[in-house]
Amino acid sequence: MALNNEHAKGSLDIAIVGGGLVGSVEALYLAKRGHNVRIYEYREDIRKTPQVRGRSINLALSVRGRRALKDVGLEQHIIEEHGIPMKGRRIHRLDGSTYVIPYDARNNQCIYSVGRNYLNASLLKESDNYENVTKYFNHKLIEANLQKGTLTFLKTDTKENVDVKADLIIGADGAFSAVRKSMMKQPLFDYTQKYIEHGYLELCIPADEQGSFQMPANYLHIWPRGNFMMIALPNQDCSWTVTLFMPFTSFKSIDTEDKLLAFFEKYFPDSIALIGRKKLIEDFFGGSPSPLVFVKCRPYHVEDKALLIGDAAHAVVPFYGQGMNAGFEDCTILDHLFQKYNDDLAKILLEFSDTRWIDTFEICDLALYNYIEMRDLVTRPSYRIRKALDDLIYWLLPDIWVPLYNSVTFTTMPYSECAKNRQWQNKVLKYIFTVLGVSTLVGVFYAFK
Amino acid sequence: MALNNEHAKGSLDIAIVGGGLVGSVEALYLAKRGHNVRIYEYREDIRKTPQVRGRSINLALSVRGRRALKDVGLEQHIIEEHGIPMKGRRIHRLDGSTYVIPYDARNNQCIYSVGRNYLNASLLKESDNYENVTKYFNHKLIEANLQKGTLTFLKTDTKENVDVKADLIIGADGAFSAVRKSMMKQPLFDYTQKYIEHGYLELCIPADEQGSFQMPANYLHIWPRGNFMMIALPNQDCSWTVTLFMPFTSFKSIDTEDKLLAFFEKYFPDSIALIGRKKLIEDFFGGSPSPLVFVKCRPYHVEDKALLIGDAAHAVVPFYGQGMNAGFEDCTILDHLFQKYNDDLAKILLEFSDTRWIDTFEICDLALYNYIEMRDLVTRPSYRIRKALDDLIYWLLPDIWVPLYNSVTFTTMPYSECAKNRQWQNKVLKYIFTVLGVSTLVGVFYAFK
Repeated sequence: MALNNEHAKGSLDIAIVGGGLVGSVEALYLAKRGHNVRIYEYREDIRKTPQVRGRSINLALSVRGRRALKDVGLEQHIIEEHGIPMKGRRIHRLDGSTYVIPYDARNNQCIYSVGRNYLNASLLKESDNYENVTKYFNHKLIEANLQKGTLTFLKTDTKENVDVKADLIIGADGAFSAVRKSMMKQPLFDYTQKYIEHGYLELCIPADEQGSFQMPANYLHIWPRGNFMMIALPNQDCSWTVTLFMPFTSFKSIDTEDKLLAFFEKYFPDSIALIGRKKLIEDFFGGSPSPLVFVKCRPYHVEDKALLIGDAAHAVVPFYGQGMNAGFEDCTILDHLFQKYNDDLAKILLEFSDTRWIDTFEICDLALYNYIEMRDLVTRPSYRIRKALDDLIYWLLPDIWVPLYNSVTFTTMPYSECAKNRQWQNKVLKYIFTVLGVSTLVGVFYAFK
Repeated sequence: MALNNEHAKGSLDIAIVGGGLVGSVEALYLAKRGHNVRIYEYREDIRKTPQVRGRSINLALSVRGRRALKDVGLEQHIIEEHGIPMKGRRIHRLDGSTYVIPYDARNNQCIYSVGRNYLNASLLKESDNYENVTKYFNHKLIEANLQKGTLTFLKTDTKENVDVKADLIIGADGAFSAVRKSMMKQPLFDYTQKYIEHGYLELCIPADEQGSFQMPANYLHIWPRGNFMMIALPNQDCSWTVTLFMPFTSFKSIDTEDKLLAFFEKYFPDSIALIGRKKLIEDFFGGSPSPLVFVKCRPYHVEDKALLIGDAAHAVVPFYGQGMNAGFEDCTILDHLFQKYNDDLAKILLEFSDTRWIDTFEICDLALYNYIEMRDLVTRPSYRIRKALDDLIYWLLPDIWVPLYNSVTFTTMPYSECAKNRQWQNKVLKYIFTVLGVSTLVGVFYAFK
């Protein structure tokens, strides 16, 4: 194999466990750098199966994710041919009336509702264009020796075992990662997995008889109800994926059709006709609520041999719409490190591991917080005043005052800096209000003196 | 098998994984209730091996642990024949002078330094008296199906596999529990393991030439040095087990004999002669620092089939001396639940799981806090003033004001209540000082008017 300047060490053999969204993007990044990439995916080729159960059907793509798609040459296609722009939150009141809270009143930036399967299939299809990417479907990881760089897969169709060796193993195998399980045997591995006490259940608002959207399409619809909520994201076929989030105990208490209808009539009356009474009952009792877990761990690497990325490294709850975007950002950051350290894996993995967790831990916490914002705070006057104030100052001073949601969603500022910014903004506002309050008191004092 | 009134359901077959301190105590509790108990221990019989490496050699026994030992008939023996009372902390200043901070100035209660091996051997020996306890050593758990109540062990001597079935599986197999690993596969299992950035290394102060203690025996000796510390607990043979706790980075920076001696001359000058220069060098460079991990998880049970206790359920850092005591308390609580629910495992396991974590999470946090108290706060005037105040009010109002350390160590108040008590005490003191402060100001104001 010919050496070239850019890859002084020659092509690396890299095995990616998991051919989902993050694994596929990472494969493209690495393929573009000239490395030999093998993707091992537990499921069969998503392009041959209509629907993967148990994963949310659509996702919100924002700037971090777009940057990675741009790097691998797919941004324009996904945004223009597929994604549905969402300009803001459309809040449904109890009486069925709605109002809009724009995501970015200043620059009109939007997030995009994209189909998980479509995006995954597009990424895999793009990788067909690279000779140095090979994909192995129906390969289930059953054994890993990360120090030695060896993996054993069970071929789920033929029941054969396959042994694999690689210069680098990348675990992109999701929140219940098998690569991470192997990594946990290492000493000094910090690990947290926590299930929140709420679950989710997916429902559907179909297209109307003319095949059009039944609700205004360019929004993320929210029915915030305090301790629980329902949301809806638009699909390409003009249907809506509706997700009901609430405590498991509440799901459990709704155990008859009458109770279900009474519950919806009380809290989501406008949605019943949209979903359809019969379909609501079918879908609600046809499935069972899924749990919501988050995972924090570190380090992400084993020497110069193995690395976790995406949900395998940092699963988050879905409330900031940042799970996929953070995973894609992992790939972008890694690509920069491959460039910076000229494919020196020991340095690349160490720096990724030592720095990335600060931001992923932060987005994990922000996503937990955002559930409370979406289901509850969003309806409160205090929230709306703060939001108006944030938007106003952002309008006046766009370079120094980016509201939290905007910095997370529409910039590539590290998540930890977004959070720090917010703390700083809180302090400034508190100071301003204190000064205003004191001035007013002094004014009143002198006025009545 | 004859039924009796106390055990309406008949004897249960119970498999305990782990024959360490907590597993052995649990076996005795269950044996006394008439159940058939099998202990499976990975190591060989501790009574046949002189020393288990990698575990601290002595431990502090306090009231919670004593209660369990009393229940199984061993308290008197351990306290009177073996334990060495420690009346307080003996603080070593930089100049080698010392002073005492008593644990319980009011009632002179002490904690006891006991040898891990001696205690474990005593418990196993006691279980020899029960026909319904069988012990299997050299049995390593390699597979578990907790729902089905089946376990597979590898006999480490003969390399045979042994399949086992039980009505109840109890995981008492320590901080790196294999039973817990199996439980992690369950959905909705919350889990955290975290390594702190400090490690520990054990040294030894031998007995003097007359075979006597080289330091006053009835104390826990501490060399608090801010970000690190050294402690010493007395052993029966008049030696001291000395443990140096400090950041891994500090351990790493001491990489020559000269640096080691300079470090000890600077921070622990009085200890060098006690340990012996040659032995210090040997022991320091002969071992490597061990990590300190804590584990929080829940639930502790799988249906009516499996349960975690002791370090397997809640490993803590050693700074409150409560690891063993909390594990023994698990056994006491379980025994009460067996009594309360008349051996109905589903109810027993559920209540233990639903309630115990509140206290074990608390002692986990308290133990982390106590490292800071021991290594740093203990030397500060603010700490000593607070301690004096606490002791004074405790003296005056023993029924309503038990200082935190005393409630954790010398009562069986649930750990979470100990912590709540402390918060309440903080509030009261803050209030008193505010009132005192305001009164003083008012007094000064009128005096100078």
